[in-house]
Amino acid sequence: MTIHIGICGVTGYTGFELVRLLASHPTAEIVFATSQTFAGQTLDAVYPQAPAIPLIAEGDAPYETADVVFLCLPHAASAATAVRALQAGCKVIDLSADFRLKDVATYEAWYKVSHPAPHLLETAVYGLTEWAREEIKTADLVACPGCYPTSILLPLKPLLSAGAVAGTVIADSKSGVSGAGRTPKQASHFVEVSDNLSPYSIGQSHRHWPEISQAMGWWAQPAPSLIFSPHLIPIPRGMLSTIYMPLAQGWDEAQVREALHEAYSAEPFIKLLPAGQHATVAHAIRTNRCAIGVQMGDPHTLILTSAIDNLTKGASGQAVQNMNVMFGVREDCGLGNADCGMNADRLPS
Amino acid sequence: MTIHIGICGVTGYTGFELVRLLASHPTAEIVFATSQTFAGQTLDAVYPQAPAIPLIAEGDAPYETADVVFLCLPHAASAATAVRALQAGCKVIDLSADFRLKDVATYEAWYKVSHPAPHLLETAVYGLTEWAREEIKTADLVACPGCYPTSILLPLKPLLSAGAVAGTVIADSKSGVSGAGRTPKQASHFVEVSDNLSPYSIGQSHRHWPEISQAMGWWAQPAPSLIFSPHLIPIPRGMLSTIYMPLAQGWDEAQVREALHEAYSAEPFIKLLPAGQHATVAHAIRTNRCAIGVQMGDPHTLILTSAIDNLTKGASGQAVQNMNVMFGVREDCGLGNADCGMNADRLPS
Amino acid sequence: MTIHIGICGVTGYTGFELVRLLASHPTAEIVFATSQTFAGQTLDAVYPQAPAIPLIAEGDAPYETADVVFLCLPHAASAATAVRALQAGCKVIDLSADFRLKDVATYEAWYKVSHPAPHLLETAVYGLTEWAREEIKTADLVACPGCYPTSILLPLKPLLSAGAVAGTVIADSKSGVSGAGRTPKQASHFVEVSDNLSPYSIGQSHRHWPEISQAMGWWAQPAPSLIFSPHLIPIPRGMLSTIYMPLAQGWDEAQVREALHEAYSAEPFIKLLPAGQHATVAHAIRTNRCAIGVQMGDPHTLILTSAIDNLTKGASGQAVQNMNVMFGVREDCGLGNADCGMNADRLPS
Amino acid sequence: MTIHIGICGVTGYTGFELVRLLASHPTAEIVFATSQTFAGQTLDAVYPQAPAIPLIAEGDAPYETADVVFLCLPHAASAATAVRALQAGCKVIDLSADFRLKDVATYEAWYKVSHPAPHLLETAVYGLTEWAREEIKTADLVACPGCYPTSILLPLKPLLSAGAVAGTVIADSKSGVSGAGRTPKQASHFVEVSDNLSPYSIGQSHRHWPEISQAMGWWAQPAPSLIFSPHLIPIPRGMLSTIYMPLAQGWDEAQVREALHEAYSAEPFIKLLPAGQHATVAHAIRTNRCAIGVQMGDPHTLILTSAIDNLTKGASGQAVQNMNVMFGVREDCGLGNADCGMNADRLPS
Repeated sequence: MTIHIGICGVTGYTGFELVRLLASHPTAEIVFATSQTFAGQTLDAVYPQAPAIPLIAEGDAPYETADVVFLCLPHAASAATAVRALQAGCKVIDLSADFRLKDVATYEAWYKVSHPAPHLLETAVYGLTEWAREEIKTADLVACPGCYPTSILLPLKPLLSAGAVAGTVIADSKSGVSGAGRTPKQASHFVEVSDNLSPYSIGQSHRHWPEISQAMGWWAQPAPSLIFSPHLIPIPRGMLSTIYMPLAQGWDEAQVREALHEAYSAEPFIKLLPAGQHATVAHAIRTNRCAIGVQMGDPHTLILTSAIDNLTKGASGQAVQNMNVMFGVREDCGLGNADCGMNADRLPS
Repeated sequence: MTIHIGICGVTGYTGFELVRLLASHPTAEIVFATSQTFAGQTLDAVYPQAPAIPLIAEGDAPYETADVVFLCLPHAASAATAVRALQAGCKVIDLSADFRLKDVATYEAWYKVSHPAPHLLETAVYGLTEWAREEIKTADLVACPGCYPTSILLPLKPLLSAGAVAGTVIADSKSGVSGAGRTPKQASHFVEVSDNLSPYSIGQSHRHWPEISQAMGWWAQPAPSLIFSPHLIPIPRGMLSTIYMPLAQGWDEAQVREALHEAYSAEPFIKLLPAGQHATVAHAIRTNRCAIGVQMGDPHTLILTSAIDNLTKGASGQAVQNMNVMFGVREDCGLGNADCGMNADRLPS
Repeated sequence: MTIHIGICGVTGYTGFELVRLLASHPTAEIVFATSQTFAGQTLDAVYPQAPAIPLIAEGDAPYETADVVFLCLPHAASAATAVRALQAGCKVIDLSADFRLKDVATYEAWYKVSHPAPHLLETAVYGLTEWAREEIKTADLVACPGCYPTSILLPLKPLLSAGAVAGTVIADSKSGVSGAGRTPKQASHFVEVSDNLSPYSIGQSHRHWPEISQAMGWWAQPAPSLIFSPHLIPIPRGMLSTIYMPLAQGWDEAQVREALHEAYSAEPFIKLLPAGQHATVAHAIRTNRCAIGVQMGDPHTLILTSAIDNLTKGASGQAVQNMNVMFGVREDCGLGNADCGMNADRLPS
Repeated sequence: MTIHIGICGVTGYTGFELVRLLASHPTAEIVFATSQTFAGQTLDAVYPQAPAIPLIAEGDAPYETADVVFLCLPHAASAATAVRALQAGCKVIDLSADFRLKDVATYEAWYKVSHPAPHLLETAVYGLTEWAREEIKTADLVACPGCYPTSILLPLKPLLSAGAVAGTVIADSKSGVSGAGRTPKQASHFVEVSDNLSPYSIGQSHRHWPEISQAMGWWAQPAPSLIFSPHLIPIPRGMLSTIYMPLAQGWDEAQVREALHEAYSAEPFIKLLPAGQHATVAHAIRTNRCAIGVQMGDPHTLILTSAIDNLTKGASGQAVQNMNVMFGVREDCGLGNADCGMNADRLPS
């Protein structure tokens, strides 16, 4: 079975990462790719190392030829395109923020636009794959989580659900520059970023804060308060969150490890690190993996380190993982094991 | 008046930074510079951009020609050399960890060596310049604080002294690679560091943890608990600490700003940033400055951002600042204002 | 058919790159992997993102279980190991310099050691794949070319063979730091490399000079003189050679393009760039591709730009390509098209 | 004597570098600084580490208060401003390309604009300081050379004048990203530059080619042909040119060294490296120095390596050096030796 794929907004970093991943997916076929800016050209005009995929205007996209459409578009534009693709009968995997927040008012307050398709919010599935497989299988519209939320929620979820978190969660996150997108800005100029290191939108002011808080509220009532501090780091890609939280009475490192082990030991993309090891960007870069380290900060405070590649597990990799779930193929197809695991078995272990 | 200077261990990063700074100091004269590895060569054999200062073995150092000796040596070696220099009548400014911890047992537990000169611990002055000027003026031996402690203690001190801190302090710190020294290690290999980002010695396991905790205990009783998480960042120099703490009843951002303003508004090397601005490495790199940003993380939790250059204010710059205090010259000599402030007055303001 | 593979020296950069590539090779199975330093541990202890392949001492290597052995060892050690592997009936693909130079005296003069197996030099095949396929098919021992030679010889070969080069060839090459190996050295320290850029072994003094000159002599008589200037660049991987040469009477850019087109238009890993485009590292990084740009520098002088990834086409990728030729599987298996080209056909073109 | 200084276009990289250098100049006073984009703000709003110099619109500039005006403006805008400043009686030091080319037609062909002030071309002095001191002393208008020309012409001049160059000169140059200016472009985006390396405008197509060729024609008749290949390197600042040329009959490395020694041994900012050493960016970064290495490439071909900081000796440092010559103060004031050399004397040698 071939999965016929459309990509809207292929020339951004997440779009190109999709192409990179799908190139080794055994049953994926890209049937169209759109670009507002580069329509009429081919993808290698934008990325020298890319294949020469023709770029078409979104208005010319033959949605009827696609089984699934990935949206790598700015917010608001994405929701409007989702409507068209769904009407054409495609499944939609949205990498923008448009369908992540369930509450329209929250979305509109944080994103400063009217939501173009609020009627879709209820059925859209928040696609943190490891925790939404059943809904994803039958979903028509999946909202892929943001990169920071993915890095923070994956280690946090089992602990929230188990009642292990006794107070404010502090997530000190560090991200590579690709997270800010491909459009040139002063803040992404090589000379300004290089040799520098900057906090931004810290506290409760980044748009991913309500997204993370919403999910925390699903998994613990009352949800702990969240303080979230993003930092820009001079690396092209990769993300690390260092997360601090007070543990509930009776919890210690061993129990935390046990809860995480139970949740994730069978998950192909979650790597729990042994005691004494912390997650680093090198654990995750160019993979769909989330690496998680566990350590006590003091006798009452847990530290989790969580590393992902913001473009892979934090965006396009998780999107492909969700597609695999939707179409019933092995979940690791196209995600580093092109033949779906066979070779991994062949490595001596 | 000329200050005659000896530098022991000049070929490490802090030694070379001293040379760089002293080159524009109006009354400093380097009378000797030692290197165990490169004795017999000149400094430009080690750093192409350096002046051709002759390097001698430590055993050949003419201490009697120096007014002050800077020690840029490994711990333990440093204390032993301090004894010799003090006996020769020099003042000593030590950049190692040997005289920072007042308690011998604590030192020996963390540094795994016998202390070579425990009798000097009591009179050694912990040279966080802004808070020790009076003692430094008459000190024979100054222990320069570590880089992480400098970045954390400067913003914290006024708040600790004022009783503003109501619970555990979490310092999430990020450092450039020069902090790990010039000796080649796997962890400082370009290919391993580049595109990576790594936590290390997090929680309460880094050697700077007891140093920071000791000073916190001087300024608040009981001292709040400290969780300290260093991270290695792919930049050559510069350091940022993002510091979280619960505020005591009755404290808010305005009062925090007021306390910091009162402490630091007259300090030439402390830059308090206005509301909405966070400290970045760019605020401090290649300066002796500590830039401090203030923001609430949630209604009860304060976030401080604090940036220094680990080699300047975090090491050699603060060492020169301390020398200036010891010898009664303007505190900013050699620290970015070579003629001691005249030109800054000449900039239009 | 499964190809059973042994890797000697897997913990260096080229060894790990082999593992990365082979993980998506449809018919490759790694049966053992050796490491002098890390025997007894697993590969993820060295590279956090690697699979947990057990590392054994070279003396314990079960050569009899392997069809082919890759040698990622220092020179001299490599030749000695090759003898053992060949005796056990394995084919050998050597990534060291030991079998590249046909003349023992030249080897010994440049590498300052006695050659451990000079009797193998005559039959060893110099594995610049595009120009040695027939010999590689039946070879027992393939010497993979050096990274600089690969980047320079690929664009040069068709022009040398056609008599287009009328005088001294100047190759100004720039390499990422992984080319210097994983052992920590002062010259690979992050702080020394970062923000710097250094020529080294320029003129006719780098060990790749005799290797390139030897091949030039195979393809043109008399061979043009070569000046070769390597530079170290602060990137982890990737290599660019900018090559200048006087054109023979009657040659112009169009004819050069024609000669290169004829040689390479059917080659999957050679990308000839259209007029006006130069090869950049981005064309080649993390691929087995050599990208080649062509332009006149002045009316008589040709400039070729040639980009490869030093670890892929410049080392382990070309090694896998050679293995594919030796074992009669599609040449692109494991080299970015895990299912050997099927998906590339599925991209719209 | 105080030198009263105006800076037009202070918020670009060369403008800020001027401020950095002038801050330690003993007799310089900045009386105004203009910015089209940031008028009304202060310089630290643009560069966090900068002093809070007020920024005014160019139309409000009080030229009558300045002795000298530095122009850090785009071409064409610069010439128009030069006219106004000269009419107000200021001396003008122009960092743009407007007064470098003596021939109007050449300027207009390469820069695609009408020259706003062709009548000034004849008297403008091409300010390669070491070779134009006498004219600079009395000049009203100095055109500072481009960064690439500075790095290439300094090592070349003595050899051209002595008749040592027998054929085409090939300059393979590598530059940091600040050379491309502060305006964000795709080509200066951190993610695009990082881990990459790109040739651009190679051969005879970069705007610095006619500038270098013009000067070569002043110093040798007929001037050798020039091939010039710029490359973009992922470093913020710094530049290296590797220069190849056939030597005239009778010339060898010793004679080349002798010619360079004669020209430069007394020059404070030219560092001739001993045999076996090549210029690296580290020799020159954040200094006004040009470091020059000499080596034969083959028996007939000379290789020169030449390193500068593109923002210092390649722009603002040379501009300050020229100002010092114009106003009769020590040439190294503000250029790394804030008290004009006294301290350098104090370093042991």
